[in-house]
Amino acid sequence: MRILRDPAALAAEALQRRARGERVGFVPTMGFLHAGHTSLMDIARPRCDWLVTSIYVNPLQFGPTEDLDRYPRDPQGDAEKCSAHGVDVLFMPDTLYAPDHSTTVKVGGLQEVLCGAKRPGHFDGVTTVVARLFGVVQPNLAVFGEKDFQQLAVIRRMVRDLAMGVEVIGGPLVRDADGLALSSRNAYLSPEQRRRALSLSRALRAMAAAAGDGAADPGALLALGAAQLDVDALDYLELRDPDTLAPYLGGPGPVRAFVAARLGPTRLIDNLAIEFTA
Amino acid sequence: MRILRDPAALAAEALQRRARGERVGFVPTMGFLHAGHTSLMDIARPRCDWLVTSIYVNPLQFGPTEDLDRYPRDPQGDAEKCSAHGVDVLFMPDTLYAPDHSTTVKVGGLQEVLCGAKRPGHFDGVTTVVARLFGVVQPNLAVFGEKDFQQLAVIRRMVRDLAMGVEVIGGPLVRDADGLALSSRNAYLSPEQRRRALSLSRALRAMAAAAGDGAADPGALLALGAAQLDVDALDYLELRDPDTLAPYLGGPGPVRAFVAARLGPTRLIDNLAIEFTA
Repeated sequence: MRILRDPAALAAEALQRRARGERVGFVPTMGFLHAGHTSLMDIARPRCDWLVTSIYVNPLQFGPTEDLDRYPRDPQGDAEKCSAHGVDVLFMPDTLYAPDHSTTVKVGGLQEVLCGAKRPGHFDGVTTVVARLFGVVQPNLAVFGEKDFQQLAVIRRMVRDLAMGVEVIGGPLVRDADGLALSSRNAYLSPEQRRRALSLSRALRAMAAAAGDGAADPGALLALGAAQLDVDALDYLELRDPDTLAPYLGGPGPVRAFVAARLGPTRLIDNLAIEFTA
Repeated sequence: MRILRDPAALAAEALQRRARGERVGFVPTMGFLHAGHTSLMDIARPRCDWLVTSIYVNPLQFGPTEDLDRYPRDPQGDAEKCSAHGVDVLFMPDTLYAPDHSTTVKVGGLQEVLCGAKRPGHFDGVTTVVARLFGVVQPNLAVFGEKDFQQLAVIRRMVRDLAMGVEVIGGPLVRDADGLALSSRNAYLSPEQRRRALSLSRALRAMAAAAGDGAADPGALLALGAAQLDVDALDYLELRDPDTLAPYLGGPGPVRAFVAARLGPTRLIDNLAIEFTA
């Protein structure tokens, strides 16, 4: 595995490979890699000839009061994990933007709810960095985790609308044995906070179980989930269409439950498919 | 020459050609082609293996009171001109956007002055359609006319910021023998308006001549140009840096003069390099 830091060098090599007919796979990350990230590499690996993973803590997607400066980092451990999971090039740019960078890619609608409503500008930062990374890496396919389910929906929309020609693959959320969704931000949690953080997945599972047992009223499901939560602040607990992210108002059709909450200063998110009995 | 209307079919062929190492050239237009457009094809032709021209009157770049509905069209004549200038594929989509298209590409700064100040949202529409067209056509190089000088600057910035990997080439502005900058919108002009429209290029030439003769004060140059104008309404007459589009305040360095004005309902633009004597 090679480590590249220069976007222009990576873009030049990607261009050559594409012109030789190679398939380029891509897993963009912000580093501090865990089994959720490496599962995305395992999805991409058999689907491409050349696998690129990026590690870049993108300042554009952090708000002024968020954790950009203390976001956890472990470049050496990350490189070992990438190498063990078949990555050909680990792209770790020192910076990704020109000093006078002035272009923003914005997806309307989808990015205005859930985390977008709570983190103004966050998804503009995500779509802008992903567009630029796609420009550098020129992937045929890219894998994003379903942990950031809204991010995946927003990126799919951007790729469709701008005809980017990248196959976007969602990788299933990976949990610890006790149910906690893996997140680099779990490193912030005290043992006590980590125990209470289990209430997010517990709430989602309770809702899914009740739906499987015949419960169908959205309000009753949400109340049932909320009763499970043991957090310091709830950002949202919602039922939405997994494709359009429109609020779920009842009836058939695919539904996903989304939760975001804070334990101390740490903001955690989780989501789960809700399947109603016929 | 083939005519294609389906974006997906064009994208699939472009992908195959790129994967075989072919160089794809692209000249995007809104049709009603004149010698300015065909000069761009002549620039692109020897630089690529496969030349695509698009004709699409992009609704996103027209304001609600602008001339979208009456923009002139001549598909048959356009096809003949493209064929005569070596175009391989003429892309004429019926529509280019999904009904729920929701992605916008925005270039800050550069698009806020000159035409951007007078046509709110215009350049967002331009950058969004060009990003999508680049996605479909996957060009190695694209040629844009210097007639739309600000558009060229905005597109160069977008391509750089999003690492699109497209070589953007500016084609020199083409004028009629009497000096009028070629424009599809010249078709709107009455003979009287056309005569008065010559005052745009006359104003720019007067400014360039005075600078060449030693005039250096920006205010005096602008007054000299304005005195030449015979128009119904002046949108702007300005001196700016050709790269950053920052206002020219005097001193050395490259300078470009920009003018936009109305003759009746028709809005015309022109621009010219200003070279000062040492």
